[in-house]
Amino acid sequence: MRAVDVIRHKRDGGALDPAALAAFVAGVSDGTWPDYQVAALLMAIVLRGMTLEEAAALTDAMVRSGERLDWSALGADPVDKHSTGGVGDKTSLVLAPLAAACGAIVPMMSGRGLGHTGGTLDKLESIPGFRTQLSLPEMRRVVERTGCVLIGQTDEIAPADRRLYALRDVTGTVESIPLICASILSKKIAEGIGALVLDVKVGRGAFMKTREEARTLASWLAGIAARSGVRTQALLTAMDAPLGHAVGNASEVVEAIETLKGAGPADVESLSLELAARMLVLAGIAADDRVAAAAVREALDSGAALEKFRQIIDAQGGDPRVIDDYARLPRHRQEAIWPAPRAGAVVGLDAGLIGRAAVALGAGRDRAEAVIDHGVGIEVVATIGEWVDAGQAVLRVQCDDPARVDAAWPLLDRAVEIGAAAPAPGPLVIERIAAPHESPLFS
Amino acid sequence: MRAVDVIRHKRDGGALDPAALAAFVAGVSDGTWPDYQVAALLMAIVLRGMTLEEAAALTDAMVRSGERLDWSALGADPVDKHSTGGVGDKTSLVLAPLAAACGAIVPMMSGRGLGHTGGTLDKLESIPGFRTQLSLPEMRRVVERTGCVLIGQTDEIAPADRRLYALRDVTGTVESIPLICASILSKKIAEGIGALVLDVKVGRGAFMKTREEARTLASWLAGIAARSGVRTQALLTAMDAPLGHAVGNASEVVEAIETLKGAGPADVESLSLELAARMLVLAGIAADDRVAAAAVREALDSGAALEKFRQIIDAQGGDPRVIDDYARLPRHRQEAIWPAPRAGAVVGLDAGLIGRAAVALGAGRDRAEAVIDHGVGIEVVATIGEWVDAGQAVLRVQCDDPARVDAAWPLLDRAVEIGAAAPAPGPLVIERIAAPHESPLFS
Repeated sequence: MRAVDVIRHKRDGGALDPAALAAFVAGVSDGTWPDYQVAALLMAIVLRGMTLEEAAALTDAMVRSGERLDWSALGADPVDKHSTGGVGDKTSLVLAPLAAACGAIVPMMSGRGLGHTGGTLDKLESIPGFRTQLSLPEMRRVVERTGCVLIGQTDEIAPADRRLYALRDVTGTVESIPLICASILSKKIAEGIGALVLDVKVGRGAFMKTREEARTLASWLAGIAARSGVRTQALLTAMDAPLGHAVGNASEVVEAIETLKGAGPADVESLSLELAARMLVLAGIAADDRVAAAAVREALDSGAALEKFRQIIDAQGGDPRVIDDYARLPRHRQEAIWPAPRAGAVVGLDAGLIGRAAVALGAGRDRAEAVIDHGVGIEVVATIGEWVDAGQAVLRVQCDDPARVDAAWPLLDRAVEIGAAAPAPGPLVIERIAAPHESPLFS
Repeated sequence: MRAVDVIRHKRDGGALDPAALAAFVAGVSDGTWPDYQVAALLMAIVLRGMTLEEAAALTDAMVRSGERLDWSALGADPVDKHSTGGVGDKTSLVLAPLAAACGAIVPMMSGRGLGHTGGTLDKLESIPGFRTQLSLPEMRRVVERTGCVLIGQTDEIAPADRRLYALRDVTGTVESIPLICASILSKKIAEGIGALVLDVKVGRGAFMKTREEARTLASWLAGIAARSGVRTQALLTAMDAPLGHAVGNASEVVEAIETLKGAGPADVESLSLELAARMLVLAGIAADDRVAAAAVREALDSGAALEKFRQIIDAQGGDPRVIDDYARLPRHRQEAIWPAPRAGAVVGLDAGLIGRAAVALGAGRDRAEAVIDHGVGIEVVATIGEWVDAGQAVLRVQCDDPARVDAAWPLLDRAVEIGAAAPAPGPLVIERIAAPHESPLFS
């Protein structure tokens, strides 16, 4: 099958069969498709779309470009969660120990922050000694010991995705639902999971700005996963304001530990509990939602989940004493207060702008090779609906570098909205999507 | 202007302004746009289309990627002809000397055959010693001496087109009217011409299979040329059967010389005369069609055009004795007859299949690096409308290599159609298009 014929077929609006998609992914993996042919096909896919069947076949070929892990010796079906990316979202650090404490196998491979969103790996790496890059045998030993592992994608997992992702970024071919889904799911499916909970964020701090866009993405993810034999459930969750109070790497680790101690913000706790409970049901560990909710509640209240997180940190080379001594985590000492310009209710905290401000402070990346500063952060002192007097702190910024604070400030000025009356609180979980959507064609 | 932003703009259906198109062409020329970004933009152009203004700006930028020749010292406006490619079309070899004999300046840069179509350069190179690759100073000297030159594109002419064309071929991005027009016209405009006659072929041996497609291409070519200050006139001409009797390089040179001697096939003579006459009118050498027709007729009948061709051959290093002694041209000695399977009228001679058969014999290229055999050929013995008895020759093949003859034969079997009655002859010139078409958008 010649590359140019595959390209022309998609260019003319045809559907690519599994053999053509496998040839494409093999060509990406072994380099026999040069970059320019890969780029031409990617653009044709962006503009001509793909059927759900094509997207599933592409995902499958990308999984097969590397290893698909096998956990059958452990006796339980591994389960994971994927979030489409938000600001202040530290739920992975809470729900993974929660689910593992309830008996789930959670071989979680996460990504780094890019753009305004944070990344689980960056957060974990603020823990002294914590290793996020493990070999597959090391990964297996951690899972056997703790039931969980929190690492980055290894070289063996969906290698085709790495080359495709790098090329999509520079050829204007990121914005394609089939390509986004194949990228996300190929990595998750290769983990060897049997079930996956999807947290699709919607709002100003999310990639999907509208509920309709988020629902479409969730439906596609669920539909493709179903075709790969992975049970899924998707939640559409609000990402207009940051989740919890802490935005920044070490400060989010602290908030996650506080949540595991039962002292976290209500939104972080409730979303973590709901996602963990759904993982238990999907993995077949809890019979139904009620049983699952009780199990995760018990794991939180008993301290079992906190103890599990301590084990995971220890197993991955981190310093478990951070759980009792937050001073062992990096933290900038200089603080700046963002004061309310007038009395009123906090009616808006734009998560997108706050995320960009965090990147300006050094907490994230505006380009892939940027170096992270784990000790900077933005703390939400007065959250949505709270009343503040003029001059009272709405945000608190931790950063020792005045130049970076200056860069972040105009973004914060635009992020905070003070109004006359507190808005009615919206739901955190906007929608629950269970059944795969059978859309015939997406373009 | 970042490449990825230009790509995204076109991907989303936007029009690219002249600055963006200039940045693209500059990036292609100096290599600062990597192949994968060029390929992604090309595919976005194929699928999103371009306005006539964009295509004109792209053409202009491609002209500016190299030199635009200046012939103002010669006092007359240079004029050229472009054909979209046919089978047996040797009119360039006839009309260039014809027009030059009438006082036109014809700085003609031609291409090689690719696919089933022949190329003027390949034909000329069958003349012993004939040099088609001249430097610009050499080219200028030949034009000053003869009023005409027949060469290939020099390195200084539209260098961006070479890289783009090579990339389009392997990325499925050839089929785009704006890209086709920019490629054709950038080279012609860079010759420094003031006028251009377009011969847009229609039919089974042409790239444009329908009159509607051909009309669209002609309109675009004329519209873009007009925006570059080049006067054009387009003819839509029939290319269902080969033009003339000879298909093959040296044999087409013989037929062109015979035509210049007044002994050529009627179709080759009439099309050459009409195209040359239109060149004279467009170049301002003849006041109107009637004057132009009389001038080219006189140049043919007097032998002035034949004499001009002799001068051109001599000026470009070729052996002018070929004009009087065809044995000085290469020619395979073995002949094979394709006989009529039954008595009847020749109703079809598929030029596309005959062109492919000629390629199979070695007369053309199925890939860019193939070597041409100038001495092979296919002769149409009985043309459309002629009556043949069973076993009588319809085609005669000159080729010394039986394996190549075997490869060509099944194509010839499919190319010839024998019917009960001679078809009514169709017009050779199907349509004449003068005014530029102002289509707002093509996709």
